[in-house]
Amino acid sequence: MVRSIDNHNDDHQDGWETEALDNGDQQSTDKVLVEAAFKGTPVPPWNKQITVRAVVTSLVLSLVFNFIVCKLNLTTGVIPSLNVAAGLLGFAVVKTWTTVLEKLGLLKQPFTRQENTVIQTCVVASSGIAFSSGTASYLLGMSPLVSGQGDSGNTPENVKRLSLGWMIGFLFVVSFVGLFSIVTLRKIMILKYKLTYPSGTATAYLINSFHTPKGAKLAKKQVAVLFKSFAVSFVWAFFQWFYTAVDGCGFSNFPTFGLQAYDKKFYFDFSSTYIGVGMICPYMVNVSMLLGAIFSWGVLWPIIEGKKGVWYSAELSPTSLHGLQGYKVFIAISMMLGDGLYHVLFMLIKTIHSLIVKNSGKKDSSVVAPGASVLDSETADYDEIRRTEFFMKDQIPNKVALSGYVVLAIISVIVVPFIFHQLKWYHILVAYAIAPILAFCNAYGCGLTDWSLASNYGKLAIIIFSSWVGLNNGGVVAGLASCGVMMSIVSTASDLMQDFKTGYLTLSSPRSMFFAQVIGTAIGCIMSPMVFWFFYKAYPIGDPNGTYPAPYGLLYRGIALLGVEGISSLPKNCLNLVIVFFLIAFAINLIKELLQRYETKLGLHRFVPSPMCMAIPFYLGGFFGIDMCVGSLILFLWERRNKQQATDFAPAVASGLICGDSLWGVPAAILSLLNVKPPICMKFLSAAVNAKVDSFLEGN
Amino acid sequence: MVRSIDNHNDDHQDGWETEALDNGDQQSTDKVLVEAAFKGTPVPPWNKQITVRAVVTSLVLSLVFNFIVCKLNLTTGVIPSLNVAAGLLGFAVVKTWTTVLEKLGLLKQPFTRQENTVIQTCVVASSGIAFSSGTASYLLGMSPLVSGQGDSGNTPENVKRLSLGWMIGFLFVVSFVGLFSIVTLRKIMILKYKLTYPSGTATAYLINSFHTPKGAKLAKKQVAVLFKSFAVSFVWAFFQWFYTAVDGCGFSNFPTFGLQAYDKKFYFDFSSTYIGVGMICPYMVNVSMLLGAIFSWGVLWPIIEGKKGVWYSAELSPTSLHGLQGYKVFIAISMMLGDGLYHVLFMLIKTIHSLIVKNSGKKDSSVVAPGASVLDSETADYDEIRRTEFFMKDQIPNKVALSGYVVLAIISVIVVPFIFHQLKWYHILVAYAIAPILAFCNAYGCGLTDWSLASNYGKLAIIIFSSWVGLNNGGVVAGLASCGVMMSIVSTASDLMQDFKTGYLTLSSPRSMFFAQVIGTAIGCIMSPMVFWFFYKAYPIGDPNGTYPAPYGLLYRGIALLGVEGISSLPKNCLNLVIVFFLIAFAINLIKELLQRYETKLGLHRFVPSPMCMAIPFYLGGFFGIDMCVGSLILFLWERRNKQQATDFAPAVASGLICGDSLWGVPAAILSLLNVKPPICMKFLSAAVNAKVDSFLEGN
Repeated sequence: MVRSIDNHNDDHQDGWETEALDNGDQQSTDKVLVEAAFKGTPVPPWNKQITVRAVVTSLVLSLVFNFIVCKLNLTTGVIPSLNVAAGLLGFAVVKTWTTVLEKLGLLKQPFTRQENTVIQTCVVASSGIAFSSGTASYLLGMSPLVSGQGDSGNTPENVKRLSLGWMIGFLFVVSFVGLFSIVTLRKIMILKYKLTYPSGTATAYLINSFHTPKGAKLAKKQVAVLFKSFAVSFVWAFFQWFYTAVDGCGFSNFPTFGLQAYDKKFYFDFSSTYIGVGMICPYMVNVSMLLGAIFSWGVLWPIIEGKKGVWYSAELSPTSLHGLQGYKVFIAISMMLGDGLYHVLFMLIKTIHSLIVKNSGKKDSSVVAPGASVLDSETADYDEIRRTEFFMKDQIPNKVALSGYVVLAIISVIVVPFIFHQLKWYHILVAYAIAPILAFCNAYGCGLTDWSLASNYGKLAIIIFSSWVGLNNGGVVAGLASCGVMMSIVSTASDLMQDFKTGYLTLSSPRSMFFAQVIGTAIGCIMSPMVFWFFYKAYPIGDPNGTYPAPYGLLYRGIALLGVEGISSLPKNCLNLVIVFFLIAFAINLIKELLQRYETKLGLHRFVPSPMCMAIPFYLGGFFGIDMCVGSLILFLWERRNKQQATDFAPAVASGLICGDSLWGVPAAILSLLNVKPPICMKFLSAAVNAKVDSFLEGN
Repeated sequence: MVRSIDNHNDDHQDGWETEALDNGDQQSTDKVLVEAAFKGTPVPPWNKQITVRAVVTSLVLSLVFNFIVCKLNLTTGVIPSLNVAAGLLGFAVVKTWTTVLEKLGLLKQPFTRQENTVIQTCVVASSGIAFSSGTASYLLGMSPLVSGQGDSGNTPENVKRLSLGWMIGFLFVVSFVGLFSIVTLRKIMILKYKLTYPSGTATAYLINSFHTPKGAKLAKKQVAVLFKSFAVSFVWAFFQWFYTAVDGCGFSNFPTFGLQAYDKKFYFDFSSTYIGVGMICPYMVNVSMLLGAIFSWGVLWPIIEGKKGVWYSAELSPTSLHGLQGYKVFIAISMMLGDGLYHVLFMLIKTIHSLIVKNSGKKDSSVVAPGASVLDSETADYDEIRRTEFFMKDQIPNKVALSGYVVLAIISVIVVPFIFHQLKWYHILVAYAIAPILAFCNAYGCGLTDWSLASNYGKLAIIIFSSWVGLNNGGVVAGLASCGVMMSIVSTASDLMQDFKTGYLTLSSPRSMFFAQVIGTAIGCIMSPMVFWFFYKAYPIGDPNGTYPAPYGLLYRGIALLGVEGISSLPKNCLNLVIVFFLIAFAINLIKELLQRYETKLGLHRFVPSPMCMAIPFYLGGFFGIDMCVGSLILFLWERRNKQQATDFAPAVASGLICGDSLWGVPAAILSLLNVKPPICMKFLSAAVNAKVDSFLEGN
């Protein structure tokens, strides 16, 4: 399931994202009759699909994935697909539990794939909130630490101190609306338009395969591999901890390519998380990051730094947005906006075109993504008949859906202005009036292409509302908050539709999917801010040189500043560069699209980098791109050695690496809260500085 | 081939050594008729066995192995068997060369196993000199840096400045005598007594296997694996270099188990050399080292340090032999002497017993090691008949041998006093009068058990001659020099006999073996001091806290000091401890022997540690023992996973690790000579010190 995507690719095979990176697991949807194999397996009624053990398992796994997503959010904001890990772990937990009970003769209800789907839905929904809750983007952008980094907009009106209470309240108010916004359209999307939802489909195939005997065996092996790499990664992270007495010490600051490269943020930081992320992401994502890092830190920033004193004052603090940092932030933003705008327009055109074609009764195979089951009723097979039957069984009345939306929207219109006094009731009302249309666009586009553009709509909302409210009335906070309102609706809507597709393919009831999503969302609304809070209290989140720079905090705030102040706030020549890079991002996408359409022989479009991926290292530097390329390299060598083994186990290894390293974050944060400091600093000094330090230490 | 062994084990399966560690490669000598497979392969005459390409290859490989042995000598003195590597590389070089020539149609003489044996003999002989030349033990013990570490005996008479000229001269004078000392006895040893010479036998089997078609294929794979691990190890060493701006920086000072453990020299120093060494050495060697390190640095030294100011003056320099360092050195020496004395006595008894049994015509299978081909003439098979035929073909007349010994001894008696004026002609004469007897003992014992006790005889010589000459007449240098005289004879004699065995089993002529040994010795006499000189000029060799502590330098000098000064030079209670540990070493060996003889059910003797192995970390600390245990662990896991693969490839991987890391020593030393310093210091500071340093650096 795709939670929310900031950027994407024209090709399912390398669909990816950065703020929430998820290339799904595109299995070939070969037309072996799946349901025939499950003929003898009874399908429990919807209320039996949501079992207590499923909810408990979801709760535990949600906690795990919330930690992981939160940690990733706070470090670089690059989040890979954790679907495989969620599916595997959900299966492992319940299967172990049921096997034990079965051996004891206590098993009352066998473990069904519908139940597995419920767990999967619930976990992905709750960890989706970890992303769309914006604890690392729009909410963090309001915080004093981040706002202190910009020289403008740092007024009481435009800063909001984070607190657990209002964050949970805000999320509860805005997160459920999306579920009701397009639930009525599910039959049209799934049955009539037969949209693909590649990630949802892939998840369904994964779950289906787990519940066939051969699949279960492979799944067990995968789980074993996952735990092994988990253990290695956890122990490695634990070991690293000892050498990080303060920030700047330890393996994560290892000047692998020398001190000069380190100053330009080129180093391999021994992070097993990002090696794992690199193994899951398509090669082009990782290469794009590396290219972006080389171009920006190797070429562009040194040039701009050479203009110090000319283009910008040499006396500014290094984090001032009026200095070099400003160029970094706003050029990164412009590339992201350019990329985002391209995709919003592209999706809009595609959606409209597709709807026109659909409604005119013609079939246009070019619009329907490959792998979609474009079957007419006369060609409907056993699978389809049976799936449709179960999909139609449990209904969610349109009345319920509509009144749900209205009631929740009214609550939101009343409550949100209490939380953010910068937003007035009519701002929220306008947001809720536009939202369903955007939600539909996003859900439809996601069904076609597997890209969710939630964060792009969110950024659009920032610009609109922050300029509407204005700087003096707290436009920055207003823009960021409206981003949350918009993103939540748009993202949960497409998530839900993905889940319906998964449910459709696993004979799970739409009603159980809906409730699983509701439960998952509720878990997420509570858990996600709490997990964030845990990190927030333990570390200086948003400090660009700290362990948790959380780049999207400043980037989102930067967008809001652009909205309220306009382009006047930019340092000299920054506007020109911003426009150039906006156009470059747009052009790169256009070139890719054109190559894909008209140059089919060499497939050159596969070698066009992604502007969004290139933009992140503009701000953060290349270190995590290098980790990810190491992950790519490992995967590449593994595939060359044993393709089948790599396909079967690489996602498990990668998930294990990510989980182990990320979960070490929990004890590490606890130790940090308890003020237990690592005992040693592994420091890297140049030979000259080292000589000074040695003589200093001898003098002591 | 065993060059020279300082310590050993009662069991061929884990025969090992420390100063020159060599457990051979004990292949099972199954009685498949080997020579039948080679029936069609002609055996070239002896002078065609020593080809130009063989000599050139030997020269190149000698250089490589001299570097490796020298580096190992200078770091810890633990040297594993490099026979497999020498055999493999010799085969690879000549095979590649001949294959190329064959394809070009230029091959005049095919590559035979006799030629391979010549290369092997030559390389092992020359790298044997790297050990017996004592550049890291008795010669280094004369140098000013090492003698400065002892408080006594640091007089001009007892110090000799090292210089390339006299070192090469000395080696030439003493190294060839051994070859002639027992060459006349070869027929008795090989044909009549049918001594095993396990390492020589194993080498022969290796070479024989290479030259059968199946063996050649495996050998090629092994060579490929060797080069891969070579590359990894070399690159890793190269990478490490960048972080070692000064001593005390970098991975080799990584406080893996914390700073306190690091102070007690417990840390994993990421040395691929010693991981490789650990993979080749038997498990018990590695475990003994670890036990020794834990006992000494964890228990004994802290206790003695607690007596600071009581047992020894608190004002002494940390390297003074009258302080803690004295306890370390002399307790280590006493364990080594206890172990050595036990084995000399044991071997003497065994040899005498065996000779009595042999001469009385009875067969005593308990004396003959397992795997020996104890075949009487009536049971002689095709292999034996053919091997005996070739062994008897080329003779070395007894007259030549005897007159060679006499002439060389006379030259030595005249020349050595010129080099070391502390030694008089009669000292040398006495040495040459005893030497052949010791050489015979050693060669015979080595044939039985694969242990060469050369360095033990050398230590004996130190004590005898240094006390004879006395402190005021330069007894320290005299003792150390006579050690060289004795060791060279004893060690080359047993080496030669090993080679005769190898030659016997590969149908190589004894005459070609003899000349190969002569050539190898000549190469070694020139190359070994030159390689040492290279390191000696580049680094402060013998500095206990430097990269090249060369522990045996001080330990050998310590023995000489004991010889000249007697026990009066020891700090308080040191004598008691020395006696206790001498007895413990003796007792451990005795217990092992008794267990082996009378407790056959559980095989408890396998778990008795080796006193010699325990003694080295007494002086150096546990870090390399930890590396070696990591090597053991890798081997253990590999064997559990795939026994056959581990058996086939582990020696190749280990050799590659050792070669790669050691050969990085060459460019590293060149860079050091050129005064190119690594750019970065990877430093490990405690959190408190780090805070100080950070504030100091900020102040700058």
